[in-house]
Amino acid sequence: MTGKESKVIVGIDLGGTSIKIGIVNMTYEIIAQTSISTNAVRPYEEVIEDMGKTAVKLLAENGYDLGQCLGVGVGSPGTVDSENGMVLYSNNICWDHVPLADELSKYLPVPIYLNNDANCAALGEVVKGAAKGCQNAAFLTLGTGVGGGIIINGKIFEGGYPGGVELGHITNGSEGRKCTCGRYDCLETYASATALINDAKSMAAQHPESELWELCGHSLDNMNAKVPFDAAQAGDACGKILIENYLRHLADGIIDIANIFRPDVIVLGGGVCAQGANLTDPLNSYLEENCFGGSVSYIPRVVTAQNGNDAGIIGAASLVQV
Amino acid sequence: MTGKESKVIVGIDLGGTSIKIGIVNMTYEIIAQTSISTNAVRPYEEVIEDMGKTAVKLLAENGYDLGQCLGVGVGSPGTVDSENGMVLYSNNICWDHVPLADELSKYLPVPIYLNNDANCAALGEVVKGAAKGCQNAAFLTLGTGVGGGIIINGKIFEGGYPGGVELGHITNGSEGRKCTCGRYDCLETYASATALINDAKSMAAQHPESELWELCGHSLDNMNAKVPFDAAQAGDACGKILIENYLRHLADGIIDIANIFRPDVIVLGGGVCAQGANLTDPLNSYLEENCFGGSVSYIPRVVTAQNGNDAGIIGAASLVQV
Repeated sequence: MTGKESKVIVGIDLGGTSIKIGIVNMTYEIIAQTSISTNAVRPYEEVIEDMGKTAVKLLAENGYDLGQCLGVGVGSPGTVDSENGMVLYSNNICWDHVPLADELSKYLPVPIYLNNDANCAALGEVVKGAAKGCQNAAFLTLGTGVGGGIIINGKIFEGGYPGGVELGHITNGSEGRKCTCGRYDCLETYASATALINDAKSMAAQHPESELWELCGHSLDNMNAKVPFDAAQAGDACGKILIENYLRHLADGIIDIANIFRPDVIVLGGGVCAQGANLTDPLNSYLEENCFGGSVSYIPRVVTAQNGNDAGIIGAASLVQV
Repeated sequence: MTGKESKVIVGIDLGGTSIKIGIVNMTYEIIAQTSISTNAVRPYEEVIEDMGKTAVKLLAENGYDLGQCLGVGVGSPGTVDSENGMVLYSNNICWDHVPLADELSKYLPVPIYLNNDANCAALGEVVKGAAKGCQNAAFLTLGTGVGGGIIINGKIFEGGYPGGVELGHITNGSEGRKCTCGRYDCLETYASATALINDAKSMAAQHPESELWELCGHSLDNMNAKVPFDAAQAGDACGKILIENYLRHLADGIIDIANIFRPDVIVLGGGVCAQGANLTDPLNSYLEENCFGGSVSYIPRVVTAQNGNDAGIIGAASLVQV
């Protein structure tokens, strides 16, 4: 069997639970993919051996030899030394100074690129997604926390040292919310999906008459980030307050990013972005009203990410430039 | 007369009131300088003719011909198109789309570089000053407003579009302070010298028993940014509250910049930086406690600017790389 493409890229999305491995073509479309369990309690050498051998097998099964593979991109959680291909620290997979690129090249003797997963997702949206063709883009992922990535001149901006580009950890409100980073009132404590869910739980518990309480089936365990949006759409006062508050905090963070980087677009990822225009329409109005310079300056559009479940593989593969 | 240097650079600091013109050597030391009145009500062509002819005269008087001039750097207030050498908009000098580089090259037929004055000040501290030798640095000027500049890989980062790198216009407190930019609660509304002076005036007016009121000679007209620092140093409760509050807001803004850019150093300029260690010591403590990643990450030092009154000329000249 021989693959249809003359050249391909391997994208590897390293996660705490599973490792997704995909082959993409020169327009970053996924043409084959598989997944293995991370099983992070193993020595890292075993995890990487498994990763490498699975990738080689996937290539072979689809008719590609290593000579056709332009390179391998790996997206990793945690703090990454991209220059030396090393995972400096990852809480998710309990790795500390793991020489991932060196290890992986034993099985995949091709150029190997490593970066943080949020940075990969940002670049993935630039090469194929909501920011396609943009030279400058910001990416915010609204999940358990708020992660971010910045693309400048088509390349990932990594900050001067590890600890930079932590867009979820800029000052936002002043309610005294303790952040996981140790500081108070970071954007993450107001604009993550977790923050929205926690706020919605408090509100629902206090308002058993609300549609919010109805929509979570009278159980706080059923609360998720979609419920307050649904309640607000249904005209529920509690839902409206929650969403208005959430969007105002998120907008403030986005405007900060606009006033600092003034990118072409600001892409939102994570589960909350399934809200689409319910999320982006009010945010874009906030930006038009509040960005520095108003209409005299360039006002970036806020859009939702397009790569969805493929974001991990496409983002990792995007590290290998065609 | 012949100058001692084989090559020189001209740095021009364009201000609303005056234009400072200096000759610097290859280590950005000022070897001669002069100043002319901007007289901005004139057509811009006349202002630039005056600027250009004065620079040529200054060179000649000091024994330099144009062949020895590596280039001219101009720092301008307002929004600047550095690529095309154009002042897009400046409120201070009432300029709108002025082709400064083209006009100036009529009198100074050498490479001409233009940038925003805050960006120039930032780069000036990198080539000769508090951030000398740093590849990545942030600069905040605490004056009437809060201006900023970012240096990445030794070069000015300008953002994707005009309206970017407005470091004074990121969210800070939540007292509902209206900012000049139209938004509420920007860093500038808490951390500018103006904000400190206004806060000190309010406090002094409410506390005639305070040292703060004593130190401004029982007249709010005498209030300046130094008085509350002096009052705090003297143990005055009002002064201490003011400075603690001021430093906390400023620190939050600086930590945001650290968490986003993670530069080598963060340089503070403007009149407030005359406070030296009174300003930087508590700020550095805040950073150590609150930067993302704590001691595991790199914690940038906060330092005060060193170029003082020469910042305008050195900053402008720094646009011309030796």
